[in-house]
Amino acid sequence: MEISQILAGLHKRLLQSYSQSGSINHLQGANLPSRTNVIELIWLLEEVIFPGFFESASADEHDLSILTAQRLAQLYHKLEREVRKNLSFNKKEESLGDRANNIDEASMITGDFLSRIPDIRNQLQYDLHSIYDGDPAAKVKEEVILSYPGLRAITVYRLSHYFWEKDLKLIARMMSEYIHTRTGIDIHPGAKIGHHFFIDHGTGIVIGETTHIGNNVKLYQGVTLGAKSLDKSLGDSKRHPTIEDYVTIYANATILGGKTVIGEHSIIGGNVWLTDSVPPKSQVINSPSISVVSRS
Amino acid sequence: MEISQILAGLHKRLLQSYSQSGSINHLQGANLPSRTNVIELIWLLEEVIFPGFFESASADEHDLSILTAQRLAQLYHKLEREVRKNLSFNKKEESLGDRANNIDEASMITGDFLSRIPDIRNQLQYDLHSIYDGDPAAKVKEEVILSYPGLRAITVYRLSHYFWEKDLKLIARMMSEYIHTRTGIDIHPGAKIGHHFFIDHGTGIVIGETTHIGNNVKLYQGVTLGAKSLDKSLGDSKRHPTIEDYVTIYANATILGGKTVIGEHSIIGGNVWLTDSVPPKSQVINSPSISVVSRS
Amino acid sequence: MEISQILAGLHKRLLQSYSQSGSINHLQGANLPSRTNVIELIWLLEEVIFPGFFESASADEHDLSILTAQRLAQLYHKLEREVRKNLSFNKKEESLGDRANNIDEASMITGDFLSRIPDIRNQLQYDLHSIYDGDPAAKVKEEVILSYPGLRAITVYRLSHYFWEKDLKLIARMMSEYIHTRTGIDIHPGAKIGHHFFIDHGTGIVIGETTHIGNNVKLYQGVTLGAKSLDKSLGDSKRHPTIEDYVTIYANATILGGKTVIGEHSIIGGNVWLTDSVPPKSQVINSPSISVVSRS
Amino acid sequence: MEISQILAGLHKRLLQSYSQSGSINHLQGANLPSRTNVIELIWLLEEVIFPGFFESASADEHDLSILTAQRLAQLYHKLEREVRKNLSFNKKEESLGDRANNIDEASMITGDFLSRIPDIRNQLQYDLHSIYDGDPAAKVKEEVILSYPGLRAITVYRLSHYFWEKDLKLIARMMSEYIHTRTGIDIHPGAKIGHHFFIDHGTGIVIGETTHIGNNVKLYQGVTLGAKSLDKSLGDSKRHPTIEDYVTIYANATILGGKTVIGEHSIIGGNVWLTDSVPPKSQVINSPSISVVSRS
Amino acid sequence: MEISQILAGLHKRLLQSYSQSGSINHLQGANLPSRTNVIELIWLLEEVIFPGFFESASADEHDLSILTAQRLAQLYHKLEREVRKNLSFNKKEESLGDRANNIDEASMITGDFLSRIPDIRNQLQYDLHSIYDGDPAAKVKEEVILSYPGLRAITVYRLSHYFWEKDLKLIARMMSEYIHTRTGIDIHPGAKIGHHFFIDHGTGIVIGETTHIGNNVKLYQGVTLGAKSLDKSLGDSKRHPTIEDYVTIYANATILGGKTVIGEHSIIGGNVWLTDSVPPKSQVINSPSISVVSRS
Amino acid sequence: MEISQILAGLHKRLLQSYSQSGSINHLQGANLPSRTNVIELIWLLEEVIFPGFFESASADEHDLSILTAQRLAQLYHKLEREVRKNLSFNKKEESLGDRANNIDEASMITGDFLSRIPDIRNQLQYDLHSIYDGDPAAKVKEEVILSYPGLRAITVYRLSHYFWEKDLKLIARMMSEYIHTRTGIDIHPGAKIGHHFFIDHGTGIVIGETTHIGNNVKLYQGVTLGAKSLDKSLGDSKRHPTIEDYVTIYANATILGGKTVIGEHSIIGGNVWLTDSVPPKSQVINSPSISVVSRS
Repeated sequence: MEISQILAGLHKRLLQSYSQSGSINHLQGANLPSRTNVIELIWLLEEVIFPGFFESASADEHDLSILTAQRLAQLYHKLEREVRKNLSFNKKEESLGDRANNIDEASMITGDFLSRIPDIRNQLQYDLHSIYDGDPAAKVKEEVILSYPGLRAITVYRLSHYFWEKDLKLIARMMSEYIHTRTGIDIHPGAKIGHHFFIDHGTGIVIGETTHIGNNVKLYQGVTLGAKSLDKSLGDSKRHPTIEDYVTIYANATILGGKTVIGEHSIIGGNVWLTDSVPPKSQVINSPSISVVSRS
Repeated sequence: MEISQILAGLHKRLLQSYSQSGSINHLQGANLPSRTNVIELIWLLEEVIFPGFFESASADEHDLSILTAQRLAQLYHKLEREVRKNLSFNKKEESLGDRANNIDEASMITGDFLSRIPDIRNQLQYDLHSIYDGDPAAKVKEEVILSYPGLRAITVYRLSHYFWEKDLKLIARMMSEYIHTRTGIDIHPGAKIGHHFFIDHGTGIVIGETTHIGNNVKLYQGVTLGAKSLDKSLGDSKRHPTIEDYVTIYANATILGGKTVIGEHSIIGGNVWLTDSVPPKSQVINSPSISVVSRS
Repeated sequence: MEISQILAGLHKRLLQSYSQSGSINHLQGANLPSRTNVIELIWLLEEVIFPGFFESASADEHDLSILTAQRLAQLYHKLEREVRKNLSFNKKEESLGDRANNIDEASMITGDFLSRIPDIRNQLQYDLHSIYDGDPAAKVKEEVILSYPGLRAITVYRLSHYFWEKDLKLIARMMSEYIHTRTGIDIHPGAKIGHHFFIDHGTGIVIGETTHIGNNVKLYQGVTLGAKSLDKSLGDSKRHPTIEDYVTIYANATILGGKTVIGEHSIIGGNVWLTDSVPPKSQVINSPSISVVSRS
Repeated sequence: MEISQILAGLHKRLLQSYSQSGSINHLQGANLPSRTNVIELIWLLEEVIFPGFFESASADEHDLSILTAQRLAQLYHKLEREVRKNLSFNKKEESLGDRANNIDEASMITGDFLSRIPDIRNQLQYDLHSIYDGDPAAKVKEEVILSYPGLRAITVYRLSHYFWEKDLKLIARMMSEYIHTRTGIDIHPGAKIGHHFFIDHGTGIVIGETTHIGNNVKLYQGVTLGAKSLDKSLGDSKRHPTIEDYVTIYANATILGGKTVIGEHSIIGGNVWLTDSVPPKSQVINSPSISVVSRS
Repeated sequence: MEISQILAGLHKRLLQSYSQSGSINHLQGANLPSRTNVIELIWLLEEVIFPGFFESASADEHDLSILTAQRLAQLYHKLEREVRKNLSFNKKEESLGDRANNIDEASMITGDFLSRIPDIRNQLQYDLHSIYDGDPAAKVKEEVILSYPGLRAITVYRLSHYFWEKDLKLIARMMSEYIHTRTGIDIHPGAKIGHHFFIDHGTGIVIGETTHIGNNVKLYQGVTLGAKSLDKSLGDSKRHPTIEDYVTIYANATILGGKTVIGEHSIIGGNVWLTDSVPPKSQVINSPSISVVSRS
Repeated sequence: MEISQILAGLHKRLLQSYSQSGSINHLQGANLPSRTNVIELIWLLEEVIFPGFFESASADEHDLSILTAQRLAQLYHKLEREVRKNLSFNKKEESLGDRANNIDEASMITGDFLSRIPDIRNQLQYDLHSIYDGDPAAKVKEEVILSYPGLRAITVYRLSHYFWEKDLKLIARMMSEYIHTRTGIDIHPGAKIGHHFFIDHGTGIVIGETTHIGNNVKLYQGVTLGAKSLDKSLGDSKRHPTIEDYVTIYANATILGGKTVIGEHSIIGGNVWLTDSVPPKSQVINSPSISVVSRS
């Protein structure tokens, strides 16, 4: 049998499959936000937020002013389009004509978001200090911006949170998943996180949708702030813990449950498994029964 | 000393090194499957399996039919070539003439694989339902396809498993390693996994080569299904556990050994370390000696 | 309000922010090493170190000689430039004229580094044997080079360590962070690691800056070799453990502290948490209180 | 004045200009065929028409079959879209909804065009023979396909003529202008040209819209077949000459007028300027008054 | 001899050559404007001048406003940099530090140039009408913008002329040479050309540096407006002819000399060779001695 | 009828056509030199020949040495491959195994060619002076290198001539055709051309295969040096004229015939048509019967 016939047969079967297995097709509905575009937006935002760190050539003030004008126009153009798609999706608009809808709403959201970048920069400056001060391995602050996954993940969280709050959940989640892919740090954009937040290596950190985290909190790699029950009917209720100010949680600790509150100034040791609240200034330690024997 | 002389010297030393340190060179043998091409194949397959999700513009039925014909021709062309290389490698063919060999075999395998995509789509639809139903944070099904690493890793596993079964092990392993890199989820393509499989965040999951997993099984992040002994002479014997239907395994649990069987409808708690079988309907709990003290 | 006015307003606010939030700007100083360039250098180095593995077409000896000459010239050119930038940064040079400085020093370092590639290839050959011999799932050695994250991370560690030793810390850390992003394995370039080093899946491994690791050591996924205290004033003191020859450390074990020494030929079990030294030939086991109950 | 203000001012003035200078804007109407896409279509068609000439690697029959299937799918996909745009433009459709119109008509035309490629290949084979036989500098036929602008221009003419006949005039003219840009040969797609057509260097050739050219005609560089009057009201009347079979026209000759007929088997000398008909078997010679004087 | 040695030898000889053949090296001086960048600027300017013609998707007013803001910022950024290089070159600045010079002057010129685009659009609208009205083959005005080389060449002339006037001659000439390459039309940026200028096919047109062309002038392909003497000492004197209003010059006519004036409303026939002035309302005809003989 | 069926039908017809219309297929023979690769080689050679003119950043001596080493390695690699293909084609080698043949011969030719670049640079320096001195419009020598098509065409001629002499005719002709496409200047690589050659605008120049041109010759646009008879049987005999030293030929002159010799120090006027020899120091003038009449 010739190749063209084989391909024709495969083509037919596949189109049949597309007309049946409904929930993994997305046909005829509004265009979804594009993963590629969302990733490019994150890159552009990183350049705008940390000027001078990712340019290939040294930029003086004059260059920077022009570069910034250019980046803002690009950001506005690209972001507005993705916001419009998410609005269409929310409203279940289906016809192609929808493309022209939602322009005013999308423009307003885009402008509002961009106007908050200076505030986000302020917050990130506090986060940076927190990481730099907390890690003796960090030699200079530039090193933290250039090579700490923790700061990158916090940056994207602070951006994605805005979109979650505006009910643009597809964009928010595509942002958080991108940075999860790059850092192994999975912060749900719905979480609420205070200032001076500290993550360094971060691999394996999971922070659930309804988590509340106060100010000056430190999380080490592998920490899970999760749900106790995974019953779908819980819907949007608070399913993840509350971490108060000045709490430190060491590597691989797991804290579960929407009513679990870790009181301020507490320290949670490595590998601890907690499903109940602890009062302020607690120290929680896991004392595993380690036995050391000689092999000879 | 001039740069050209320096480079000439380095060149000479490097070629000497190539002629000596044998096992990290791959010279004069058959061409190996290319990492870049395998990654492009995965992207193409994701587009074919989830139509309408990754296009940059909205596609109607008419577009989709053309797009699909085009994608199938591309897939056939690229995949057949990589399959041929893997067949050559298996047979230790060495001369350049080998390139023309194995055409019939490679064509047959490629056609057979592509013809199974509709079935794989059916399976993934079940996996999708399982994830959506199991996670209250998932607001709509589209979100799961667009942003859940678990579904992406399962998709690639179901594709790579085909190639493992056909003894195209280099392709199979390059596929699984790519998605490991992107998600932190490491499912060996040799594992056998039933329908309605659930993974969500998934970071740190390791599923070994000879693992058997039944239907409706749920795994949370950090779970290891591994080998007890790492003796090379064990070769292809069953070294990894068997997980029966309707088992749920919580975060960071570790289950080891080829004879270890987790009976159906069991629940394995977080951080549990198991090297022995448990009967059906067991609940296994780790009760660490957590001590809470006041810091003041 | 028109778009151009909105953008003009945003532009103004952003430039104000740039003139204030000092530590997250990098303006007017020497040009920093570029993340994109460092990543391209790693790709080029992988091609030079493992000839024949990443080419898209089969390369015979003749091709290889030419390809190698070409790659060396490219490597020299790109690397020398990044080295120069890091030297400028170290010396806090600020004016644009600095670009011409440091040429001799940068050339010398670049040439010296490239001349060591044959030695690094020798070391990696031992590492490869160690991984291949230690994992029954590895069917052929080619599979390890093509698809084991462990070997990739060790390769980049051995390269980045050179730059750390030469006090080119930004380059060294950008290299280690890139491979962390790709593999989830985070080896600080300052660590000292002997020959025949074994990592396979590796996700979640963290090896701190002042760690010493002997020869023939094996680490499984999730192992942390970390610091006990994170007091910034500890500066460059030894804060991470020492692992002697022939030690094996199983998944998710955590070993902390600069004075902690794991004696040679010891075995550390999975999930063990250690902050004290153990003598040679120790076997350390975590015996968690696992309880199995029936659910019915 | 700051850059953002300057840009805002320019932006405002430009939008004003867009709302006024009507005929050089194309806003709110149907999307026009894209120049970039039309050029890509020409490249694809050249690959399909001359198999084996433009591939970067040697293609055997097996590869060719797959490649051709892939190219046809791509051609169909891209061409149908541009045809649809031209149909919309012809019908002065304005709303965005038009995009879905004209699918059936566009598909029919696209399929019909592709089905004629074998015939066009036959014609081009005759043209090739004509060029090869007529130029002693052509050493082998491959050289003509690889490096003769004349054959490239004839190829594109034979393709563009189809679209002109179907009243897809924008596509037809964009094709002819592309190849004009590349070869300096300007054949209007409306011209009618017989078989065994010969052009070699061709720079500066102009063949007008209503020209008729018979079989076995040869044109050298700089020949113009043009209109005598350029009165716009002449509209679609025959304004360009008729060249009968077996006519040869040497370099830089100019022949004008819709009623001018060059009888069969005539020879028109270089630099001749003709606005009247000549009977069959004529030889037309320009005898300029050249004077040779000594400079000393 | 090994390849690396051959390359080393070639390298040495080439560097020697660089240190000797002075005038074809450009080393250690100011950076020259970049050909690639100048070409990208032309593309951007064409998009800004003819909105809606070169976009790949249909743009409504809202999109257009954003796109325009983005294009202006990009234009400003790229153009200012090339202007600065040309200023440095003019002043024979040599050290690397020069890069920071000339910012104010370059910014002023760039802003001034961009502010003239609306005027240039007005002029081009007249040129478009002139071409459309003068060519019966032009079916709709869109066709002229999409596929007439004449309009493209006039557009680039009107842009390049600005830079010539500002003594940015390298940029001006790189622009004119680019469009010469694409259309075969060579208009020197120093020429002065009035409104309603007509060129259609245009291949082979040459218009010299000191040519003056009035309003409503039409030039057909192959017309040369050149210098009589090519004595270098003539420097910047007027060496090319003056063409007054409403003159038409047919194909391949040649008019030479700085004192040659073609009076208004004259018609110059095809192939005419003129080195003297003609009064207004002249008709100049070449009557070659064409002889027609029978070949039989 | 479905698209896949339509495509399958087209595929079948096209493959049939491929099996019949022999001379426009190139299947199963040796791989031909690639047009894309030849064009990239020309770009690389221009960078090597004119250092400092096409770099995007200013290059000092140190950079240049590294850049040159890199470019040479690339040139060697790419050129040797195309040379090998042309050798295979010459020898009518057909099987895939041929790829390994001709390595020694190709390496020798490639090395020899590259070793001549310094000499070619010397020649081009003379050509540059000739153009600069001969054109009052050329303000500085840099302008000639950056924007004169004449110098670009002469450069490529001097390169392509080498390959023609070595009987690598496909490569030589692909080079000359590329630059013909870019400049409208068509110099056959077989022509013999002395030093201090002058071309400026050049559009429409044609120089035939067996032309001989002495030293210090100037050609203006539209000059043809062609053959009188186009009888294929003339094969490789001398069919094109000989132009002796210090001859100037003005625009659009045509000189034909293998026995036609233009004696040294002669001047050939514009539009002259010559098929006979003229002695040294001749001045040849075309005195057309131009009539000037008043239109009123």
